[in-house]
Amino acid sequence: MLNRILLTVAYDGSNYFGWQKQSNKNIQTVQGAFENALSKFFKTDVTCIGASRTDRGVHALGQRVVIDIDTTVPVDKIPLALNPFMPEDIVVNNAVIVKSDFHPRYDCIKKTYQYKIYNGKFRNPIFRKYSEYCSFYLDENKMDTAAKAFKGTNDFKAFAASKNSSKTTVRTIFDIHVKREYDFVIITVTGDGFLYNMIRIMAGTLIMAGKGQIDYNDIKNIIESKNRNNAGKTAGPNGLTLIEIKYDFG
Amino acid sequence: MLNRILLTVAYDGSNYFGWQKQSNKNIQTVQGAFENALSKFFKTDVTCIGASRTDRGVHALGQRVVIDIDTTVPVDKIPLALNPFMPEDIVVNNAVIVKSDFHPRYDCIKKTYQYKIYNGKFRNPIFRKYSEYCSFYLDENKMDTAAKAFKGTNDFKAFAASKNSSKTTVRTIFDIHVKREYDFVIITVTGDGFLYNMIRIMAGTLIMAGKGQIDYNDIKNIIESKNRNNAGKTAGPNGLTLIEIKYDFG
Repeated sequence: MLNRILLTVAYDGSNYFGWQKQSNKNIQTVQGAFENALSKFFKTDVTCIGASRTDRGVHALGQRVVIDIDTTVPVDKIPLALNPFMPEDIVVNNAVIVKSDFHPRYDCIKKTYQYKIYNGKFRNPIFRKYSEYCSFYLDENKMDTAAKAFKGTNDFKAFAASKNSSKTTVRTIFDIHVKREYDFVIITVTGDGFLYNMIRIMAGTLIMAGKGQIDYNDIKNIIESKNRNNAGKTAGPNGLTLIEIKYDFG
Repeated sequence: MLNRILLTVAYDGSNYFGWQKQSNKNIQTVQGAFENALSKFFKTDVTCIGASRTDRGVHALGQRVVIDIDTTVPVDKIPLALNPFMPEDIVVNNAVIVKSDFHPRYDCIKKTYQYKIYNGKFRNPIFRKYSEYCSFYLDENKMDTAAKAFKGTNDFKAFAASKNSSKTTVRTIFDIHVKREYDFVIITVTGDGFLYNMIRIMAGTLIMAGKGQIDYNDIKNIIESKNRNNAGKTAGPNGLTLIEIKYDFG
């Protein structure tokens, strides 16, 4: 019997051109590598649907992926059984059976991302692929205060890349905060969804707030302007990690 | 005029067979890559002496390296000028002129290393090259208490790999502590020097303490036994980072 199984997947995005499979098979994507491993393990061609199309260089701890499979492996044993087939930068951490009409993207209630900025005095090569480097000392309290301007339901047109193809640019940010952990400044944001490059543009804008160039009211005005040119730069992909995706069952 | 210059160097050791240059030039080492970059920048063959011979897979934030060079570049401008010549996983963060008879290894007063254990419920591919994974929940307080057994001047023969070639196995540990930061358990240790694999064997032994298998008194007894077989396993290299090396001038 075919079961729809929802997997929770973590990956280091450094060596991939993003999640989404490309028509050019020479382009290494997480989805491509993931489907290869699944197909080897289940000894049949397996395709999957990811909840979030993370960009090139973006990481994930809580990506959610659906597969339809007829297998005798008990669902709770799937992660341990699958992982030896995965490349070392992809790990399956959980598997549950879901309804046959469940969709990981459309049924999602909220998503949480983190954006990490390395804000030490010196460049740190160890974190170069997992953070954005900023040598100018950022005031994380100013950033946290300014970040609250994003909260609530807003038209985030000013924070969408021109490539954005969503029907509506209205999104709801449930929570956003900025804190310092040693040399890292970490932005954590939870919303019902995000436009193309939205979090990276928010991060670029909050870096300006951390430098004292703009504040809460300026961000309110940028949102209202609906003009991408008024927001900050698109911060690099390496700082971004998909942390968690929530459904009504967890 | 030839000046002896002391550089502070950070590197991600993931892609190297350790610091020390090998006779086989096909083996990528940090020292080899570093000397290549120096030679290109100064347009002459440059050799260097590192303070610590970090192993394959071990990282450094505060390696110290000495070169003898005749250059018109002001010493404080050397890091910024050199970095574009370095591979992306090696960064020069400081440069000072030292006496011509200064030796980065023999003149060292103390060294600080960190050993990072990823102790989350799930494997995290993002940190796979920068931490040791342990799925069993470690009690960091038990580890911290047990770690104090290492403090002081001791014969650490039980904590040296058989390959160790030091004349004496007596070393002084000035300070050692263990703390938890979210899913990481971090051992920080400062000493006048360390035997071959010493910190990794200490980490393997402290992991046993974190599981409740041994305590402070057991570690005292292991030290006294001077028998490598009584200590824990050698923990993997990826968790180890050279943090700082101190001289009488800083």
